[in-house]
Order: sequence, then structure tokens, then C-alpha cells
Amino acid sequence: MKLATYKDGTRDGQLLVVSRDLSTAHYATGIASRMQQALDDWGFIAPQLQDLYETLNNGKARHAFAFNPAMCMAPLPRAYQRLTGTAYASHAAWLGEGGGDLVVHQAASDVLLGAHDPVLCADQNSGADFSAEIAVITGDVSPGLSPDDALECIRLVMLSNCTTLRHVADRLQSQPAASFSPVAVTLDELGDAWDNGGVHLTMQVAWNGRKVGMCDAGTDMTYHFGQIVAHASKTRALRAGTVVSSGTVSHAGFEQNGKTEWPKGYSCIADKRAMETALDGKATTDFMQFADTVRIEAKGKDGQSVFGAIEQELAPLSLI
Amino acid sequence: MKLATYKDGTRDGQLLVVSRDLSTAHYATGIASRMQQALDDWGFIAPQLQDLYETLNNGKARHAFAFNPAMCMAPLPRAYQRLTGTAYASHAAWLGEGGGDLVVHQAASDVLLGAHDPVLCADQNSGADFSAEIAVITGDVSPGLSPDDALECIRLVMLSNCTTLRHVADRLQSQPAASFSPVAVTLDELGDAWDNGGVHLTMQVAWNGRKVGMCDAGTDMTYHFGQIVAHASKTRALRAGTVVSSGTVSHAGFEQNGKTEWPKGYSCIADKRAMETALDGKATTDFMQFADTVRIEAKGKDGQSVFGAIEQELAPLSLI
Repeated sequence: MKLATYKDGTRDGQLLVVSRDLSTAHYATGIASRMQQALDDWGFIAPQLQDLYETLNNGKARHAFAFNPAMCMAPLPRAYQRLTGTAYASHAAWLGEGGGDLVVHQAASDVLLGAHDPVLCADQNSGADFSAEIAVITGDVSPGLSPDDALECIRLVMLSNCTTLRHVADRLQSQPAASFSPVAVTLDELGDAWDNGGVHLTMQVAWNGRKVGMCDAGTDMTYHFGQIVAHASKTRALRAGTVVSSGTVSHAGFEQNGKTEWPKGYSCIADKRAMETALDGKATTDFMQFADTVRIEAKGKDGQSVFGAIEQELAPLSLI
Repeated sequence: MKLATYKDGTRDGQLLVVSRDLSTAHYATGIASRMQQALDDWGFIAPQLQDLYETLNNGKARHAFAFNPAMCMAPLPRAYQRLTGTAYASHAAWLGEGGGDLVVHQAASDVLLGAHDPVLCADQNSGADFSAEIAVITGDVSPGLSPDDALECIRLVMLSNCTTLRHVADRLQSQPAASFSPVAVTLDELGDAWDNGGVHLTMQVAWNGRKVGMCDAGTDMTYHFGQIVAHASKTRALRAGTVVSSGTVSHAGFEQNGKTEWPKGYSCIADKRAMETALDGKATTDFMQFADTVRIEAKGKDGQSVFGAIEQELAPLSLI
């Protein structure tokens, strides 16, 4: 099924069930009003949401309305935990960071932005950079699970844009709030595209309307979500509603005719700049400026948008 | 006022108002059932809780009952964010970490333990170490505040025990869930002891019943809570319910008769071991073993416990 959260003036918004083709939606009122509620009691609530989803897909839901992604908060608008991994070793390699080992960090989750919310940044010389990522939401995770067993704890999958301010040295200060696709989907919605703990779909990334990224999120995933979750829960339990971000979806380059080729574009500007430096000795692409837009989407075999599109603008943040 | 959360089988527990002397309590039902609710709408809810607190202190609350700290979850049992700072530069100095600059990290907040909950650890050779800390809970914090203005966003103060597994190399895996005092108190409860963004009270730490720490939490606080909050919110807003941990309360040593003296004991074993190494060339105190207990408390001028005591045991965690 596909779930979303509509803005309603509250911090947690209103839980929606959205039709498979993203055309219609229905409030989940009467089943659960907030996404965290559904995650806290998934075994009881998910089947009821699934029933509503099927009724909605069959055109039989009585109070269905046209789905508007611009009304969406993040599917989970604030989370009790977010972890971010380094699932794509090629991204770390491009940036010259680490030895390709799996590293998992705690990340901010007190504000998770909706798909059409602006990304706010006080200084446009901060080196604002988008990052197209996959994110999952877990149920309760027992400590010490194997990576395969950890996969069983994954409830929902989303797309994410995790902005980084590349010119801000302090790690905490370099991370504005992360953003998420309009809908979160259960694993069965992905069919064959969910395989070996990753999402085998093309991350279509457009920057100011120009297509810049077409990386497959499955091809060069070095550490799958089960590995990331098992790493994070090695010494303690994780609670329901933990958001796990993959890190920037990335492809390794390859050598052809003595040149490094990178044919599928890029999912963050830092990777592009690293490529430019590798090819030409210097980076020529600048980071984002105010009013720049980024669009991130993934389509299924049928050509339909799976999660809806993230469509954001970089906007000035007013400091006090 | 003083607030606590009682275990009731749910993930968020039941909000309580607790009398100043910690003898009696009253459910806040009818005002707010969960602590996060109060934090989300503090301006509206806090005055009502304050009224109940005064009625309770006057012995006029009709359904008051004896307060039992063993029934407490953390005052905020799960939080949308936890930040941990390096407020005490002397602790970093003892451990030979960093140059004493303020560093703030995201920390886990999906599970915050109650004052009598066991600290769970799979392997007693992990180097389990207690850490006596001060923690605050903020309201909404606008980005770019000055440290002084950031102080105005602090709603509640608690004691905390932030266990670290010193022999676990991976930072994320070395941090079990943090624990909190039975009650959280508003700043006015601290009177003069709340000064310049810190808590000027003695952190009484006992390990297996033996008094080991009597550090004043105000004396050597290098960075106050306003500075930590302002650092974390330099580039983005923080939302209500952000827990901010001070890092290990620590005193700098001083030279006397050619020796380094450290008269007030220690708030974590690692500091003790660093002292031993400085004095004798090697650390002789081992880290915690299963069934070891730690007790952390702070008393006011009147000799009464301000926050109640953290009283925990290190217990084996069963891995799957």
C-alpha cells in the first residue's frame, strides 16, 4: 500500500491512504490519524489500512479525493530516530572519504520536510548540495539480528533528499532537515524492484529542470538496508519509526579508452565535482544558489511514479 | 514545577505532576496525557500543570498518591531529537579527545530509559561506563539565536546517565540508550542553582554503593546550555522536545606539591582511569561488571533531592 501525511496545521499531520497510481487519496481517520500510530501498532493497523487501500484502488472508497503532493508533509513528519548509512561505497570513494567501510550515523529527525517544502539555508555560499537517497522506516528491531532478519523489520520505503551544506565544516551544522517523497510504500508495492535489501529503480534527478542523474539505486549498493539496520542494532534495540537513509545513491566510474566514464549522471553535486576533478583536474560545477530547484523521482516498470516526486527549491532562511 | 512519566504499558506512558518534596504525585489527565503533548503546546498547557502542582504542594489535590520513582519512565520516554555536547572541556582533556572546542553530536532518542530501568549490555567485557550528566529539554528553537536567547528556549532540566561501552570502537554501537532522573524540573525550581546556563549543584555519584563522585556541575562547565543549543541551531530550527545532554560532568585537576590533585572524585570511570594513568602511569580501576549499580543524585541547599535519584544496574542483554 501507499501512505502519505497531509498538512493540517499540526506537527504530525493527518495520515492518508493513497491509490497505487497516486491519483486519489482517503483519510485513514477511524483507523489511525498519524503515521507514528500506525508504526507503533503495525500488526493491528496495517491490515485495516490495506483494506482501505484496496477499496480505494477499486474506486469504491466513499470519501476519496484527488491526491495533491503539494499538500504532503513527509510521510512521517517527525521521527524518534534517523540513521544515515554509507550504503554506496562509490560515493565515499568519489569524495575521498573513508575506506568504503559501512559507517552509520545518528541524524536529525525532529523535522522531516515534505516533498514540496523549500529547503532553507541562511547563506547561499554554504555550498548547498542535494543528495538523492532511498530511505526506509522500520518497525521495532531486536538487538543482534542478522542482516537478513533485520530486513524483515522494514515497513516502508521512500525517496529522500538529504541536503548538505558542503562549505560548512561542522558536521551537525552542515545538515539542514532532510526531505521525503510524497508517499511511503510497503515492500510488496515494489515487486521485483525490492531485491537483496535494496531498491532496483532508477533515481531520476533533475536540477533546475535539466536531467542530471539516472543512477540505478540497486546496481552499486555496497551495503543493503538489512546490513545498515543490523549494524545500528548490534548493541541495542531500535524502536518503531526509525528512519534509515541510504546515503547518496552513486555509481562507481569505470575505465574506457583510458578515461574514467560515468555514464549515469550524478545524485549529488559533490560527486559531479569529484568526477570533474578526476577528468579535468578541477571542479567547474558550482553548488546550488537560491531559487535553484531539484526534482527526484523513481518510476516502475510500468512507467508510473512509485513514490511521487520530490520537487524542492532552495530558499533563504531568515535568521533571528 | 516537577513532572514525571509513569509506566502504563504504552510507549509514551502517563504524564504526572510530582510534589516539590517528591512525596506525592497526581496524574495530569485532563490537561495532557503525555509529556510530548505538553512540550508541543507549552504556553497553553504549562500554566495548567503549574496550577495542579501548586494544589498538590498544598496538599489539596484530590487524587494524589505516593510517588514511586521505580514506576517512572524517562520524563520524556522517547524524543524526536537528542543532542549531546562537550560542555566540560576537562572531561575531553582527561580522555585526550579534541582540543576543548565545543562539539555537538546527534544521539539516539528512540528509547530513553527510566531512573530504575537496567542498563542492558550484551557483553560485560564491553567496558561499560556510567556518565553522570545534566540534560535539558527545549521548546521550539529558532535558527540563529544568540546563546543567551537560546537559554530562553529551555523548558525542563533532568539528571542523566549516558552509558558508553568504552571497548566498542564504533561510535554508534558504543552508545546504549541513555537514562534520566525520575523527574524533570522547570528552571524556577532550581532557584540560584540555575545560573549562567548551567546547574550549580553537586552531582553525587555512587558506584556499587560507594561514593565516587561529588563534582559540582557548574564550576568547570566550559560551554553552557545556551551555547550548546545555539551551536546546534545555527543553520536550522530545532523542534520542541529536543533533549540536550551536557556530556560528562567533570572537574579539571590542579597541581599541588608537584602532583595533580582531583579532590571531587569522578562522574565516569574513564576519567578515573585517566587520573590513575596521570598519577601512577597506569589505570587500575576496571569498567562495570554485570550487577554493578550506579546511583546519581543532586540535592538542593535544603538537602532535599531535586530530581530524584537514578539507580540502575548493569544487566545482560539477550541477543537474538
